[in-house]
Amino acid sequence: MNPRPEFDFLESLFAAATAAAAPARCVPAQLPDDRHERLLVVGAGKASAAMARSVEEHWPGPLSGLVVTRYGFAVPCQRIEIVEAAHPVPDAAGQAAATAILQRLRGLRAEDRVLALISGGGSALLAAPATGISLADKQAITNALLRSGASIHEMNCLRKHLSAIKGGRLATAAWPASLLTLAISDVAGDDPEVIASGPTVGDPSSCADALAVLDRYAIRTSAELRQRLQNGELETPKPGDPRLARSEFRIIASPALALQAAAAKAVAAGVTPLILGDAIEGEAREVARALAGIATSCARHGTPARPPCVLLSGGETTVSVRGQGRGGRNSELMLAMAIALQGQPQIHALAGDTDGIDGSEDNAGAMIGPHTLQRAAALGLDARAALDDNDAWGFFSALGDLLISGPTLTNVNDLHAILVR
Amino acid sequence: MNPRPEFDFLESLFAAATAAAAPARCVPAQLPDDRHERLLVVGAGKASAAMARSVEEHWPGPLSGLVVTRYGFAVPCQRIEIVEAAHPVPDAAGQAAATAILQRLRGLRAEDRVLALISGGGSALLAAPATGISLADKQAITNALLRSGASIHEMNCLRKHLSAIKGGRLATAAWPASLLTLAISDVAGDDPEVIASGPTVGDPSSCADALAVLDRYAIRTSAELRQRLQNGELETPKPGDPRLARSEFRIIASPALALQAAAAKAVAAGVTPLILGDAIEGEAREVARALAGIATSCARHGTPARPPCVLLSGGETTVSVRGQGRGGRNSELMLAMAIALQGQPQIHALAGDTDGIDGSEDNAGAMIGPHTLQRAAALGLDARAALDDNDAWGFFSALGDLLISGPTLTNVNDLHAILVR
Repeated sequence: MNPRPEFDFLESLFAAATAAAAPARCVPAQLPDDRHERLLVVGAGKASAAMARSVEEHWPGPLSGLVVTRYGFAVPCQRIEIVEAAHPVPDAAGQAAATAILQRLRGLRAEDRVLALISGGGSALLAAPATGISLADKQAITNALLRSGASIHEMNCLRKHLSAIKGGRLATAAWPASLLTLAISDVAGDDPEVIASGPTVGDPSSCADALAVLDRYAIRTSAELRQRLQNGELETPKPGDPRLARSEFRIIASPALALQAAAAKAVAAGVTPLILGDAIEGEAREVARALAGIATSCARHGTPARPPCVLLSGGETTVSVRGQGRGGRNSELMLAMAIALQGQPQIHALAGDTDGIDGSEDNAGAMIGPHTLQRAAALGLDARAALDDNDAWGFFSALGDLLISGPTLTNVNDLHAILVR
Repeated sequence: MNPRPEFDFLESLFAAATAAAAPARCVPAQLPDDRHERLLVVGAGKASAAMARSVEEHWPGPLSGLVVTRYGFAVPCQRIEIVEAAHPVPDAAGQAAATAILQRLRGLRAEDRVLALISGGGSALLAAPATGISLADKQAITNALLRSGASIHEMNCLRKHLSAIKGGRLATAAWPASLLTLAISDVAGDDPEVIASGPTVGDPSSCADALAVLDRYAIRTSAELRQRLQNGELETPKPGDPRLARSEFRIIASPALALQAAAAKAVAAGVTPLILGDAIEGEAREVARALAGIATSCARHGTPARPPCVLLSGGETTVSVRGQGRGGRNSELMLAMAIALQGQPQIHALAGDTDGIDGSEDNAGAMIGPHTLQRAAALGLDARAALDDNDAWGFFSALGDLLISGPTLTNVNDLHAILVR
């Protein structure tokens, strides 16, 4: 009853999406032409070690630098130092790396050249608290935000204002050197200010916005920190700041590109793709019900797409944690979708984080099919109880239906693929 | 700044959808051919008075009967008695009507003919508690379920087992007369068992299912009621019951039909429609974020549809009430969507209940545009605070952006239309 052919097909779409965003495929053509010049490389993100490796392979000139990536996402490099640190909650390794990056940028001159390799996850990995803020403060706030249901945009607004490196501060530290940023976007719309909290671009958000996020989710902080936000002491450089004038920013891979690659793979298999977009947000279990409704309509009415078809979407859902279980937003989305679909015979689905790690476990996501609930019941698993306990990992682990890719060394956010036959 | 042309367009789609499901348009052709025979008419639902009126206009033969509709949805009839009652929480008028309908059906013979006019809302309007259950019990349970976030399917499962008329019991009461049901569906997939809790069709759900709903949402009931469910005393007639053998069931209008009518109207205006289906469920404020994401992708990437386009969907979202404000699920969906869209310039939207009444107020829903948040702020309205308080009605009432149609005298569930220019 394990629906291998459908799962294989869905996994092939996931693989096509991540391959399209692989640094080895998208970095080389974007490097400057004069590759015998001296270059200082810095960077942060889940893809950044793989990006650094690709630079090394295509840059014969003098090269030095440091990039920080997530534990498990390092690749061997010769000339660029690779540091691993914690994600999504920053740790001391990330703090040391951020400090080291700022030190390397200090005292550069106008003739110096810096390449920044930025990708999703860089926000947590570049953990350099602003002067007077402790890492413990930042960790506590990040933990509270992760559990609050706050959007990634709201989290990043706060992160920028508590940081010595995010929100354009890396770029102002490199001034007056020239700076090229190559970025792999993990956010809908590919807004440079949002990717990794925009360390190399001006920040339009203000201290007042950061305070509003704290208040909206009732995040507890010290009175001193609130005071400093109220005073505007933690303000970030704004777009148009003259210290950003020698900085160029390029997106080299994106969620939309990954969706297009998955769509092309589907076409090649004779399945009609419909891309619902790269901007799906909302509580994972409720988004699951809405997407299940759209898939149900395909099966019943042939609209918005006629079977065999696959609904493709990306974005970043949220999970308001209430239970004690394990599992990330993609696995939870799949569990809720299985419950919503109630064994509809025509529908299989996959949801995965394109970085390969859904939350804190070893899986990228999970897959469901018409028999998911029935197979679970046969094992004594209660899908609804698992959802109530936020234990999608436990549920799909027992079923053997986790999506396991290992770290993909890139990150273009989540991929949802719903196959309707 | 009030975006009248876009709002006018969206209102024209809503009007097209409701007109396609109007009884005057869809009842006459479905009546039996021998229209000089005697016919007993019964029925319940928001559309049922208008359906009765249409029968009267096209049935020259002897006609009698009684239908119950929602307060405000009655239309003058000559030969069929029209009764108004409360929705969504049943009242004594609905109970009296249901009792009167059962009395009219009692003692019919095989040569008698019954026409049942069923539409959405009939479940609450046909309030005939099963023997030994009080109306107060049913009201308390319905109220608790409405506030619990339970799906309409779960509510109806429970309603059937507490009823003397739902879940096929109206049909078994009419036995051995022949019975034709004309139904206007307000549920995705048009399942006869679900529309108005299926008073004329067998019920596949069991007492055990009803108990599970009580437990899932921790609904308090008397120990006696639980006992009777556990004993199976309240079991409904099942599909295949011989007393249902002379019963015919026809869907004469549906959410999918209404969506197609709205789509045709859009095409005529040069706007590309994409029907996301009739099965959108989930917590209204989260569904809003998912739909906003899809609309955003249309604006940014031209997928799943290229502007100018309109995303059309139907279904029934839920609202878990936590605040003290007023407003139904459609208005709440619009408020959450305005917050999610953050003033995106290309997007306007409408959400409305096709019966014309969104929840408990006088509006069918609401509309939003790029300036909704800005106009609200100018009036001192805080959109997020209004959402937290479930006060979408207050918010849109102050803005003048309620969708007000009055009772439409039909009901094909909700319509969401998102225009991307």
